[in-house]
Amino acid sequence: MVAPLKVGIAGLGTVGSAVVRLIEQQRGALTARCGRGVRVVAVAARSKTRKRDVDLTDIAWARDALALANDPGIDCFVELMGGSDDPAHSAIEAALKSGKSVVTANKALIAKHGLRLASLAEQHGGALNYEAAVGAAIPVIKTLREGLAGTTINRVYGILNGTCNYILTRMEREGLSFAECLKDAQRLGYAEADPSFDVDGHDTAQKLSILASLAFGTRIAQNEVYVEGISSIAPEDLRAAEELGYRVKLLGVAVRTSKGIEQRVHPTMVPKTSSIAQVMGVTNAVTIDGDGIPPITLVGPGAGGAATASAVVADIADVASGTRALPFGRHSTKLRETKKAPMERHEGGYYIRLMARDFAGTAATIATRLAEQKISIESIVQRHPNGKLDTDESDTPISPVPVLLITYATSEDAVHRALHAVRADKVITGRPQVIRIEKN
Amino acid sequence: MVAPLKVGIAGLGTVGSAVVRLIEQQRGALTARCGRGVRVVAVAARSKTRKRDVDLTDIAWARDALALANDPGIDCFVELMGGSDDPAHSAIEAALKSGKSVVTANKALIAKHGLRLASLAEQHGGALNYEAAVGAAIPVIKTLREGLAGTTINRVYGILNGTCNYILTRMEREGLSFAECLKDAQRLGYAEADPSFDVDGHDTAQKLSILASLAFGTRIAQNEVYVEGISSIAPEDLRAAEELGYRVKLLGVAVRTSKGIEQRVHPTMVPKTSSIAQVMGVTNAVTIDGDGIPPITLVGPGAGGAATASAVVADIADVASGTRALPFGRHSTKLRETKKAPMERHEGGYYIRLMARDFAGTAATIATRLAEQKISIESIVQRHPNGKLDTDESDTPISPVPVLLITYATSEDAVHRALHAVRADKVITGRPQVIRIEKN
Repeated sequence: MVAPLKVGIAGLGTVGSAVVRLIEQQRGALTARCGRGVRVVAVAARSKTRKRDVDLTDIAWARDALALANDPGIDCFVELMGGSDDPAHSAIEAALKSGKSVVTANKALIAKHGLRLASLAEQHGGALNYEAAVGAAIPVIKTLREGLAGTTINRVYGILNGTCNYILTRMEREGLSFAECLKDAQRLGYAEADPSFDVDGHDTAQKLSILASLAFGTRIAQNEVYVEGISSIAPEDLRAAEELGYRVKLLGVAVRTSKGIEQRVHPTMVPKTSSIAQVMGVTNAVTIDGDGIPPITLVGPGAGGAATASAVVADIADVASGTRALPFGRHSTKLRETKKAPMERHEGGYYIRLMARDFAGTAATIATRLAEQKISIESIVQRHPNGKLDTDESDTPISPVPVLLITYATSEDAVHRALHAVRADKVITGRPQVIRIEKN
Repeated sequence: MVAPLKVGIAGLGTVGSAVVRLIEQQRGALTARCGRGVRVVAVAARSKTRKRDVDLTDIAWARDALALANDPGIDCFVELMGGSDDPAHSAIEAALKSGKSVVTANKALIAKHGLRLASLAEQHGGALNYEAAVGAAIPVIKTLREGLAGTTINRVYGILNGTCNYILTRMEREGLSFAECLKDAQRLGYAEADPSFDVDGHDTAQKLSILASLAFGTRIAQNEVYVEGISSIAPEDLRAAEELGYRVKLLGVAVRTSKGIEQRVHPTMVPKTSSIAQVMGVTNAVTIDGDGIPPITLVGPGAGGAATASAVVADIADVASGTRALPFGRHSTKLRETKKAPMERHEGGYYIRLMARDFAGTAATIATRLAEQKISIESIVQRHPNGKLDTDESDTPISPVPVLLITYATSEDAVHRALHAVRADKVITGRPQVIRIEKN
């Protein structure tokens, strides 16, 4: 019998405590799975006295995370403190440099320092596992890192932020505004007091940059993600999407194009019949498009103490059983530099909503301006004050009326130029709303 | 640089040829991923002269699968011949006994001989990977074997047969009969000339028995799966399901109950809003319910040359890179004997359709017979000849009318006894249709 794996855990918040409990509960199962025991032998946390619903008898307290990482009495350092930099960063570096394996749920840190940490893990022979960093219990890291090694991946996209999907789901189902739903999400603990990291798309961008690296074998480039959040989405956009056969989701999309890797986070219209459109509430989902095979979609809880702890313990079990993969699915020196496809050159269909001063005149102007940019219109409709769609152009209202446009595939650049011209024509009031369409 | 992994492939049908092509196409990517090359050095197939769309230059031909398995010039034996017994079985045994790793897509063989083969792999140090055996490119084996090591799994269920799901989807969408859709499926190559293995549920049962073993850490028990196929499903059942908020899917369900492990394959009503209900056509899906966490659903192509080859190559890549897990996620001696929960004691809700000679009288008799078995009725409705549902009991038609019942959770046994009594009362004509309901 091999000696048990000795685990040290830095951070005893919701997830850290859940991991300690789960390892204890799963003691027998883990031994059967790993061929050896798994024991939490030491922990580090800010407060030793804080009340936690977990039994810490016989577990040593390290002075701090760094001391724990350097403790020769542990084999596997589990970082659950969060934060993209110190103290988490130096503790992980220290653990890897001493040949220990590291398990972390820290997306911010992996997105920022993943390449350097992977290289340290490879040099010193430890594992670096981070399944919980993206999609919590959804095994998306393992799937991209190992499960699809036989496939050229062309696109990976998903709903990676539960807060945003919760807000969009409520807005759609109840016709509420973004602000109302955000307030509710905060009250229910689904959104932070400062929600900007989630609702502005930055959380999704960090996760996407990790998935893109695994999918395409490129170096993580979180600063090269185009990011747009959901705060400008109005109930009328969701209503229009519904009537046009779409749903609006905040997607992170990474796609291989002839111009390079496109990484973007933005509200997206997806066909109502697609797998991703069915994902409601705080649930997350990732779809992977492999060359020559139909898409694979993974759906599940993307956050929460228990779901995150489940992924962390699976990562620890891989360390214990010796199931070892390289951190980014290939040696870090083999990760290619990301060639960024500029967002202006993104191509796809667009939904455009504008407030026309006069429907007939505006329609003519818009048609002209779009034609000048070689943009083809799939549909142009006017929304009556009663909220129903109509294509009857004979209407000549006095107050501004919403006009909804769906374009065929065109470029971001062309859309911007056309809308710039329409605004200069002074036939609309306010800013046009633009939502990209993603087909499956 | 480590020497390349030398691969021998037995079976050059659609999948085998696709694997040879994919390894060649992915040559650079596989080397980057695995830290070593992957080379197909020898093959065995029934016909050496058959036309195949694959370049076999520089690849040796073995006399037969067994000779290939015993060839000291290969490291990894890939079995793509099919069939639960010889020649595939003895070839795999020989390969494992000589310390080679084995990759197979053969569900029938794993379901029948998996335990013994796992034990051989463990004794002699080779890998035994079979991701493609269930759900083709959907990484469900890896997810259960490694990704959810930290979670107690309570239930795993899914759509595991594309042929059945294709037929049910067409029946539902177009109101066609089972026979008509089967004929179309055969014409399109989605169903075999002898479709019974698929449509009677046996293919699903084999796959389910493998998933159950991985999910619960038990020995595979394919003979202890309750199996019922889809041939008795009528368009009116699908119409009723639709109106009652359900869809009918052929599910394989393995669930941990207080009476043991329940393994069953049967047409199932699932709530229309569930992830599994969205899965249409030949697509497969598996949902995993872990203790204390929301369900995880994996959706994707469950068959097809390219999708199967993708999973086979990923398994080969794991062998090449040394990413090694035990065949059933734990040592085969640690797999517990399956304690089978008898189907008569299955508990759940039921949909029952019967042809009543007289609605009012039959309703009263049914209500009495069900009450005697302590079965509570959630709804009882009569279908008018015009096809619409109605609960108006005042109708007294002359010819038999369909009556639809939904029960609250009860036992299989109670339902059988109640229906036996109803038939003895002679208030119905023909056999009652019974479809189990699975809630999420």
